Amino acid sequence: MNYRKISPADLEVFAKIVGGYYVLTDEEALKKAASDETEDLEYVPEVVIKPDTAGEISRVLAYCNEHIIPVTVRGAGTGLSGGALAVRGGVVLDMGRMNRILNLDTDNFQVTTEPGVITQVLQEHVLERGLFYPPDPSSRGSCFIGGNIAENSGGPRAVKYGVVKDYVLNLEVVLANGEIIWTGANVLKNATGYNLTQLIVGSEGTLGVITKIVLRLIPAVQHNVLMLVPFPSATEACRAVNAILLAGITPSALEFMERQAILLTIEYSGNTSIPLTKDTEAHLLIELDGKEPNVLQHQAEEVMKVLSAFETGEILFADSHEQKEMLWALRRKVGEAVKNHSVYKEEDTVVPRAALPQLLATVKKIGGEYGFSSVCYGHAGDGNLHVNILKGDMSEDEWENKLPIAIRELFTEVVKLGGTLSGEHGIGLVQKGYMHTAFSDTQLRLMKAIKDVFDPNGILNPRKIFPDSL
Amino acid sequence: MNYRKISPADLEVFAKIVGGYYVLTDEEALKKAASDETEDLEYVPEVVIKPDTAGEISRVLAYCNEHIIPVTVRGAGTGLSGGALAVRGGVVLDMGRMNRILNLDTDNFQVTTEPGVITQVLQEHVLERGLFYPPDPSSRGSCFIGGNIAENSGGPRAVKYGVVKDYVLNLEVVLANGEIIWTGANVLKNATGYNLTQLIVGSEGTLGVITKIVLRLIPAVQHNVLMLVPFPSATEACRAVNAILLAGITPSALEFMERQAILLTIEYSGNTSIPLTKDTEAHLLIELDGKEPNVLQHQAEEVMKVLSAFETGEILFADSHEQKEMLWALRRKVGEAVKNHSVYKEEDTVVPRAALPQLLATVKKIGGEYGFSSVCYGHAGDGNLHVNILKGDMSEDEWENKLPIAIRELFTEVVKLGGTLSGEHGIGLVQKGYMHTAFSDTQLRLMKAIKDVFDPNGILNPRKIFPDSL
Repeated sequence: MNYRKISPADLEVFAKIVGGYYVLTDEEALKKAASDETEDLEYVPEVVIKPDTAGEISRVLAYCNEHIIPVTVRGAGTGLSGGALAVRGGVVLDMGRMNRILNLDTDNFQVTTEPGVITQVLQEHVLERGLFYPPDPSSRGSCFIGGNIAENSGGPRAVKYGVVKDYVLNLEVVLANGEIIWTGANVLKNATGYNLTQLIVGSEGTLGVITKIVLRLIPAVQHNVLMLVPFPSATEACRAVNAILLAGITPSALEFMERQAILLTIEYSGNTSIPLTKDTEAHLLIELDGKEPNVLQHQAEEVMKVLSAFETGEILFADSHEQKEMLWALRRKVGEAVKNHSVYKEEDTVVPRAALPQLLATVKKIGGEYGFSSVCYGHAGDGNLHVNILKGDMSEDEWENKLPIAIRELFTEVVKLGGTLSGEHGIGLVQKGYMHTAFSDTQLRLMKAIKDVFDPNGILNPRKIFPDSL
Repeated sequence: MNYRKISPADLEVFAKIVGGYYVLTDEEALKKAASDETEDLEYVPEVVIKPDTAGEISRVLAYCNEHIIPVTVRGAGTGLSGGALAVRGGVVLDMGRMNRILNLDTDNFQVTTEPGVITQVLQEHVLERGLFYPPDPSSRGSCFIGGNIAENSGGPRAVKYGVVKDYVLNLEVVLANGEIIWTGANVLKNATGYNLTQLIVGSEGTLGVITKIVLRLIPAVQHNVLMLVPFPSATEACRAVNAILLAGITPSALEFMERQAILLTIEYSGNTSIPLTKDTEAHLLIELDGKEPNVLQHQAEEVMKVLSAFETGEILFADSHEQKEMLWALRRKVGEAVKNHSVYKEEDTVVPRAALPQLLATVKKIGGEYGFSSVCYGHAGDGNLHVNILKGDMSEDEWENKLPIAIRELFTEVVKLGGTLSGEHGIGLVQKGYMHTAFSDTQLRLMKAIKDVFDPNGILNPRKIFPDSL
């Protein structure tokens, strides 16, 4: 696609739509919009536009569609697959001003919100009225709910409560040509035409711009138990994950962290109160939640019974709100800590969870063959393992040219195990080259044809999801 | 579309693919495939083909696609929107032979099955290994799991466990041109490309033929409590539904039945052991389930506390497995009983559940204005109300020409309440004329363009979902 460069005349049009104050072309604003949390990538857009309403977005898109100007939607910039990067330049549509929670319907357990609301803010807002929005990506303190929906985010609680897609009832979306639609209805059951809602969830800004979101909520859960379990064997930790679930217990979180993940995070956060004995190869962080403390207590005992069949170190039960927060902060900071430690690439592998020990072994085996070390952690209860590959001693040439072959090999094994490329980070820019390991040409052409239906001129988030060959 | 009539040469081709024994053109077979459970509709196909494998279906579709022969997939024929009716003739693809449960993966709580397995058979099969597949349409004793997925079926348990779409991980689908794809991966979290799986769920056989299904399962629930609660006021019964949920209790079923629904079912089933006092206007059937009897007991007490704020008759607690079965049989037979009683049309309205009292009032008001009586029942906890309109004394002219205006008016009100046309029955043939009450031209054109991507020649289940004007 031949995209048009933005001219001063275009900027005037944008200024008329959103107001000149919200059309930014200064270096600082462009630089700020050039990166997200993915590696050290940087793609500077030509202009940053900060719309306030769906109507404004409609007019911006209609204009860009007519003049073939690329538009990349940006939330809080916490993405881990480069989905918000304007790789073809053009407009970055910054959703930060659309940060109003529009309606909390406590009768129907539904909330209607704009996309620029911080996920944790939304969670706390509904919790004040006794309601619960479970999906909580590690970045929940800064990421936007709109970005969560664009990426179909997960987080630790998915093992019990499901991911973002399981909470989205209806979306207002501005299409590439400026038309505004709702994708469904505000109902729990819907068998009325194709599921456009679920097509938009996880479509990474390539099919339309999400401007309103209706989420279903559930009654708040009052109590939880949190335990940190050290294992001398990482493989055994993975096996324990399945043993817990097979015992019929569904924890509200079941997280895995390799020793190196914990070490780097302790170093990064300066928090030395985390016990980490010499012979610990991995930790499981296990949370149970529920309405009744005695039921929880009983469940915790069941978990202990399951764990007694495994060799573990001393189990730490968090005995205060502060200690729970501290353990969760540790878990949430792993990504940042690894990023701070080394040049890295993060893979977001996901497999049927019983295959986790095999996946972990495969990661280490391929690392040995290609000469990279890796830090693994993630949502073990869902089979979702984040594999952070450290550059370490690899040469630039090895990093740029040999590593992709290793990653392709890893993904090929993941697919053989019944898994796929990304559990919750999306494909965006950095994984698109691997899509052929998971999908045939037929599958990819189907997806691309759907993209063409929604965005025939290819203005929305170009060069994402699909391999360049397509 | 100009469809080709099937010739003897075509039949020979089909016979070569599936074997002559499975290519049926006798009157009995055609007549059997001409109806489903929707009103008294009858559309006789030209041939019934009974394939055994995805490979056979692939070859049949490739041929039909080349020669523009319509293909309508048929499961057990229990559909309530005419989705399996061959309205343009051609081939009915009868999936009854593809009835193998292929793999029960107890490690990962997943089952892989062919589409022709009866839902209840599948449920019982996984339950033997301690696993639970919750969605249970009333027809679960005869309907096929493939049809459930094509229609995104629900059932009583959706209020706690969600609908079919919430359990489908991955689908093998034969496309119109004969290509075979998987839509996703066997994982609980997936952020890898567009969600083709959820696009196929609920697409009513218009996008492809489902040939393998991977479902997630959950640990089986051992205990339940079932109570039948009579209300002198149907509106109050609807209000009680929301009061229970607002109290933070999530029953595993929360069903509503108007007096007339119970009366007709008692009459139809000959079961006189159901108590129905003179002043009862409606019943709620409330089921709680869980792992621990004492927790259940406590929940039942909480429900009673909520109900104590309402005027109710004497509450019946089912005290044996047999009595529970009897009450559920009553509920499941309502549809059949109404069908047996009168010529009728069934609407599958769904609204945000707090709007149920308004919906019920609207149904009765419109009935009064247009001179029809109605029997209402359904999944109140989800806001899903089945409205059975009885022909009664209406003339043929009123039934054929005036009633559609009344139904359009009803749907318009449903949409105003935040609801939509169908919660679980699908649009199929009988609701497609009302799609414009829920969707704009833009929305319908998007859906239609997706249809064209999957099925450019329009051979798959023609004349369904979309209004004829499109």
